[in-house]
Amino acid sequence: MHDGIAQVREQQQSLPAHDLSALLAALRASAAQRDRDGGHAAQEKQWIADAGLLTLAVPREFGGAGARWSEIYDVVRELARVDSALAHLLGFTCLQVVSIDLWGNPRQRERYLRGTVEHRWWWGNAVNPLDTRLIASATPDGGYLLDGQKGFCSGTRGSHMMTVSAQDPATGKTIFAALPTTRDGITVHDDWNPIGQRQTDSGSVSFTRVRIEPYEVLERPDTPHASLRTLISQQVLTNLFVGLAQGALDEARAYVNQHGRPWISAGVAKATDDPYLIQRFGEMHLQTVSAQALATRAAHALDQAWQQGPTLDADSRARVALATSEAKIVAQRAALELGEQLFDACGARATHAPLALDRFWRNARVHTLHDPLDYRVRDVGRYALSGTLPEVSLYT
Amino acid sequence: MHDGIAQVREQQQSLPAHDLSALLAALRASAAQRDRDGGHAAQEKQWIADAGLLTLAVPREFGGAGARWSEIYDVVRELARVDSALAHLLGFTCLQVVSIDLWGNPRQRERYLRGTVEHRWWWGNAVNPLDTRLIASATPDGGYLLDGQKGFCSGTRGSHMMTVSAQDPATGKTIFAALPTTRDGITVHDDWNPIGQRQTDSGSVSFTRVRIEPYEVLERPDTPHASLRTLISQQVLTNLFVGLAQGALDEARAYVNQHGRPWISAGVAKATDDPYLIQRFGEMHLQTVSAQALATRAAHALDQAWQQGPTLDADSRARVALATSEAKIVAQRAALELGEQLFDACGARATHAPLALDRFWRNARVHTLHDPLDYRVRDVGRYALSGTLPEVSLYT
Amino acid sequence: MHDGIAQVREQQQSLPAHDLSALLAALRASAAQRDRDGGHAAQEKQWIADAGLLTLAVPREFGGAGARWSEIYDVVRELARVDSALAHLLGFTCLQVVSIDLWGNPRQRERYLRGTVEHRWWWGNAVNPLDTRLIASATPDGGYLLDGQKGFCSGTRGSHMMTVSAQDPATGKTIFAALPTTRDGITVHDDWNPIGQRQTDSGSVSFTRVRIEPYEVLERPDTPHASLRTLISQQVLTNLFVGLAQGALDEARAYVNQHGRPWISAGVAKATDDPYLIQRFGEMHLQTVSAQALATRAAHALDQAWQQGPTLDADSRARVALATSEAKIVAQRAALELGEQLFDACGARATHAPLALDRFWRNARVHTLHDPLDYRVRDVGRYALSGTLPEVSLYT
Amino acid sequence: MHDGIAQVREQQQSLPAHDLSALLAALRASAAQRDRDGGHAAQEKQWIADAGLLTLAVPREFGGAGARWSEIYDVVRELARVDSALAHLLGFTCLQVVSIDLWGNPRQRERYLRGTVEHRWWWGNAVNPLDTRLIASATPDGGYLLDGQKGFCSGTRGSHMMTVSAQDPATGKTIFAALPTTRDGITVHDDWNPIGQRQTDSGSVSFTRVRIEPYEVLERPDTPHASLRTLISQQVLTNLFVGLAQGALDEARAYVNQHGRPWISAGVAKATDDPYLIQRFGEMHLQTVSAQALATRAAHALDQAWQQGPTLDADSRARVALATSEAKIVAQRAALELGEQLFDACGARATHAPLALDRFWRNARVHTLHDPLDYRVRDVGRYALSGTLPEVSLYT
Repeated sequence: MHDGIAQVREQQQSLPAHDLSALLAALRASAAQRDRDGGHAAQEKQWIADAGLLTLAVPREFGGAGARWSEIYDVVRELARVDSALAHLLGFTCLQVVSIDLWGNPRQRERYLRGTVEHRWWWGNAVNPLDTRLIASATPDGGYLLDGQKGFCSGTRGSHMMTVSAQDPATGKTIFAALPTTRDGITVHDDWNPIGQRQTDSGSVSFTRVRIEPYEVLERPDTPHASLRTLISQQVLTNLFVGLAQGALDEARAYVNQHGRPWISAGVAKATDDPYLIQRFGEMHLQTVSAQALATRAAHALDQAWQQGPTLDADSRARVALATSEAKIVAQRAALELGEQLFDACGARATHAPLALDRFWRNARVHTLHDPLDYRVRDVGRYALSGTLPEVSLYT
Repeated sequence: MHDGIAQVREQQQSLPAHDLSALLAALRASAAQRDRDGGHAAQEKQWIADAGLLTLAVPREFGGAGARWSEIYDVVRELARVDSALAHLLGFTCLQVVSIDLWGNPRQRERYLRGTVEHRWWWGNAVNPLDTRLIASATPDGGYLLDGQKGFCSGTRGSHMMTVSAQDPATGKTIFAALPTTRDGITVHDDWNPIGQRQTDSGSVSFTRVRIEPYEVLERPDTPHASLRTLISQQVLTNLFVGLAQGALDEARAYVNQHGRPWISAGVAKATDDPYLIQRFGEMHLQTVSAQALATRAAHALDQAWQQGPTLDADSRARVALATSEAKIVAQRAALELGEQLFDACGARATHAPLALDRFWRNARVHTLHDPLDYRVRDVGRYALSGTLPEVSLYT
Repeated sequence: MHDGIAQVREQQQSLPAHDLSALLAALRASAAQRDRDGGHAAQEKQWIADAGLLTLAVPREFGGAGARWSEIYDVVRELARVDSALAHLLGFTCLQVVSIDLWGNPRQRERYLRGTVEHRWWWGNAVNPLDTRLIASATPDGGYLLDGQKGFCSGTRGSHMMTVSAQDPATGKTIFAALPTTRDGITVHDDWNPIGQRQTDSGSVSFTRVRIEPYEVLERPDTPHASLRTLISQQVLTNLFVGLAQGALDEARAYVNQHGRPWISAGVAKATDDPYLIQRFGEMHLQTVSAQALATRAAHALDQAWQQGPTLDADSRARVALATSEAKIVAQRAALELGEQLFDACGARATHAPLALDRFWRNARVHTLHDPLDYRVRDVGRYALSGTLPEVSLYT
Repeated sequence: MHDGIAQVREQQQSLPAHDLSALLAALRASAAQRDRDGGHAAQEKQWIADAGLLTLAVPREFGGAGARWSEIYDVVRELARVDSALAHLLGFTCLQVVSIDLWGNPRQRERYLRGTVEHRWWWGNAVNPLDTRLIASATPDGGYLLDGQKGFCSGTRGSHMMTVSAQDPATGKTIFAALPTTRDGITVHDDWNPIGQRQTDSGSVSFTRVRIEPYEVLERPDTPHASLRTLISQQVLTNLFVGLAQGALDEARAYVNQHGRPWISAGVAKATDDPYLIQRFGEMHLQTVSAQALATRAAHALDQAWQQGPTLDADSRARVALATSEAKIVAQRAALELGEQLFDACGARATHAPLALDRFWRNARVHTLHDPLDYRVRDVGRYALSGTLPEVSLYT
């Protein structure tokens, strides 16, 4: 389970096992309250940074853990079992790190990847491709001035660095850049108020004559390799769902073992002997392991494609995309289903609001709407019916 | 749809159609905000009382509407479409009214049923049979003194009258009574804080040397007829679930028609032309009409049994119990499923917390845990496999 | 359950209850063997005719039972519980009878409806609208000559009369007629060989210069009333599915009660005490009653529309179409699911081929492919999302 | 996909790739007809033997392929895609081979394992543990005389060798032996007549004073390692289910691509562009890959446990049992579901009996009743709820 974490431990002597267990326990302890409060989890983000997890995706040459994706996703799952919002923040910092790794030139990689290690940077994400309100005006020196808005900027609040995309009306193109979140003219709004995933710091960001220096402009290659970023992102989501399913099962198990009482007509002495409750846990477990197995399979496919580097061909990339969609669909359904069945397992008293046990369903519900399931099933169906592999798109 | 309401209108000239539509519209307008705030809906309860709905179950001989159960449940469904907490309160006032009707002697029926009409009483319910902490000590005059606690006393907060059950340790029996909520020694606690159904006023109640007058003691006959009360109660829940499913479908339809945008790769001009969205609404509709049809069928079975009065035999009563369980199971699943699929229909922006569209799922989730689904399925299964009809129990 | 049959009994003193029970028992006794043999059930069709069931749909003015559709469908369900192929034949004879009733002029109604009563005619169906290979050439006297083929002509083999549709190339229109199956030039082929519904006599028919007399030509009015025929047909299918689900449940119950043995690790003395088997029967029962309730609801909607006669408006007709599709979808799923779960209930020994217990699934599987479920769900979804009622079409 | 077959090819130069493709094509070509005929597939079994597949499980030291279980199951899956009955026969020959490998002494392993390679033996299975009618009477020389019956003796008809279990009333123990099927006193009955898996040669066998020589008596060690046989057997079934699901999907894809026509109201030019058909294939694919992923995961767990040999501990063995049950449940459901949905994909004409496309459902239905799903889910549920790993039993 903890392979990814074990990997980190191995490479960073500073990360003893008890720290990680302690981190997970500490996050779990406050998760219900923080779900209710929403807002920014500054303290908890510091713990995650202190545990050395922010450098998981940074290559070893820059001092990072250089972990495989399958290992990184194990960590994401583990965190998501107790707190899927903070797991999302970690996953998205890894995603911005890999964006630099894929799109940056050698100097940018050196600056930003090593900087992530040295300064324990959290990264925000202002590259939501469906939001085209942010305008980039080229400056003579090769930089840009940014004006406008971006919505759903996960992780930006409280971050040190961010990636950003904007439209250049002069060329009709989208430009990308990395810059400090503290740059003049950037205002991060406290307007993220959803029914779940409440601490992902995903509010909107305003830009007023924000200066992009030439050395901050990223060039996104149009290659299968560079487009792996989208799949890396989708697998972050997938593993959040797996973690949510596992976490709901964890909580159900713990609750029933601690508080469960057999139903008046069950005819058994202990809740754990109730034949129908056992069956319910069986079905919950089956959904969870199906999601786990497909997510692991997709992560291994990604690992293999990643190792091919820039030589990766379109067909191999598309097979990773297919495996990613397969896993995401199954994991999404598992997360929702487990979040709901948790209550059938635990019974009426588990609906007491301070327990916030509905956060698993709410977290899953918010995050599984990123893009519509039906169109992901369509992609899988096209392959199954006609052999057509998914094309590169904003979500696949 | 509005048959029950139409029935009320007919009999009470004071209740024009536009008032009822206005009531539903007014409840819907504030439902999201009240879901977030929780607490007691004094204003909205007054509106319901003003609409004359509190006397639906009071026989005409006492000035009530004398509506059939199928009509009453139509009203419960309509309310639950916009506010399942207040629908629950109305349903449970009807349930206490019918408790008096079934268990009261002629003088009690006169006093309490006519009183409900004259004073527009809301009734609370302190007869939760699984909570046996409330002790009744007989007094020489045939009354009792009550001491202890009752949990999950739906509707008690803000009520004028309540029914109560308590254990008499001297006889080992459970006693029942009707009394004013303002009686000395009664404290209604503001401790109801669940993840859904937040305004059902279902907190706990403390009793300190609370006097039960002899004329307040109810005698519950041990007859199939009197035991219909349990089925009436279960059908209140069933119709709440039906209303929740309908309400979720209503909101999904309204949201998509107003805000829906086709997905980027859908290839259609309007969201309402999206083939997969249409399919989703088809499935949501199918679940809803299945629940409606079974709930209506169960209500008609209850109407028929009710009309037989005290001559009702055990077998006929058990068949109503079976139909009730069938409807409740299907309705329960529909309510949960619709509460979840609402979001697949509406998309990510529908998760904005102030919309509180998750209240359908949360309301369904809290209320569907009243008793475990599995044991209700078992009852149905025993009939299907062995022909054994459900026995009278606390929940069937 | 047997309301329709009771209705027949009442009106035809010749049909005592024990005869009907005997008919059902006799059909059940040979159903497995006849499923394996396929072919034409001449003997069994005679029994059905002898029971007086062929005149169920004939109005009383012509000597028929004049039963309501809800009653006719009850009979179809009862037959389908033991033999869905013969139930289909009876349903389709009723459908041809109503075609005459709807499309015939007074003399045709007199001739064919009274003839059905006097001669106990079985009717075949050669009006499959998707098969346009049959050509009608007008003759100067107002009749036609038919040449070509029709496929899927349910009930034609062994029938006395048939309805037929054909294309008139001169006008581009479809013409309809009633004629004796023995008419010169008609060849009924023995080429119906499906995996289920093996005795529905649904082979192809060849026509070689077949004479249609002017008095045999039917004029199909383009009215909502006349288009009820399609819904009557769809509800025949729906009630076959309901009957198949009930029949599978009947067989499962009988088998387990007679042969069931508890699983080695069940820890119960009798199979009927197995908690999981009870649960399975519960779920099977729930699917069945959902289908029953919706089919009954649709039949009542049809009864009401039917009673309005030619004044029926398009909107009212469309609401019957909607209820029909709702019922058909749920019933279809129930029939398939029950046909499969029957085996989970009965265990491995129930797969012995001579028992032919797989006929429920195979019968359901063949018959549920008449038109694709997905497009029926789409119709329902369009209503649920946009309020659009189903249009008149070949299948709705 | 064909890794196992590739492995065989590598080691046995006599097995070129085109032979294997040819074998699969030849089996597929006659599968429908043989499903209808039932009986013994002598010719096809010879082809399988000629392809060298009977020695897959024989260790290399005896001249066999010594393939890993994951490789053997790949072959089983591939065969099951076209013919799950013959795949079962191959799987069960491997199972008897491993029984000798696990329970035999050095001389027995030498004799029977090398014999399997030299003589291309098919092995039958007469060790059905639930059938205790076969009596073993000890003879003074250490052998036995067998008298009685065994049912469900898969693969025995047409086999050269068989394993057998029998009850010794003197000791109350079960004895095991390997012996030639041609041994005097053995009668293999032609009484296997199920609704599916019709060519698994699983009839009953009578024994009349059948001599077991002392050197034929097998000693089954009571170790976790030896009890892997049960899991190997369960994974044979699991991979049959996976192959059935894949095969149903293969046939659906081929049929739609060759014969599919868009539905009249679909509004698309080709069936393969139908949005709902695409979705259906998507869902079929998802069920299939979930089953594949879990079956592969279980096979790898088995490979690891197998490599530990006799030192395998109970806990490690139990974890393989858990993974096996997880995979079997998911694969079982996939096989049934795909066998049914195949028809929704292909439409009404696919029900023509000579195509026998219902064989996928019927094969799955027969084989998935080996032991009840519910009790396997219970085992998984006990682990999920209480951490209890499955105990060694007849089926786990």
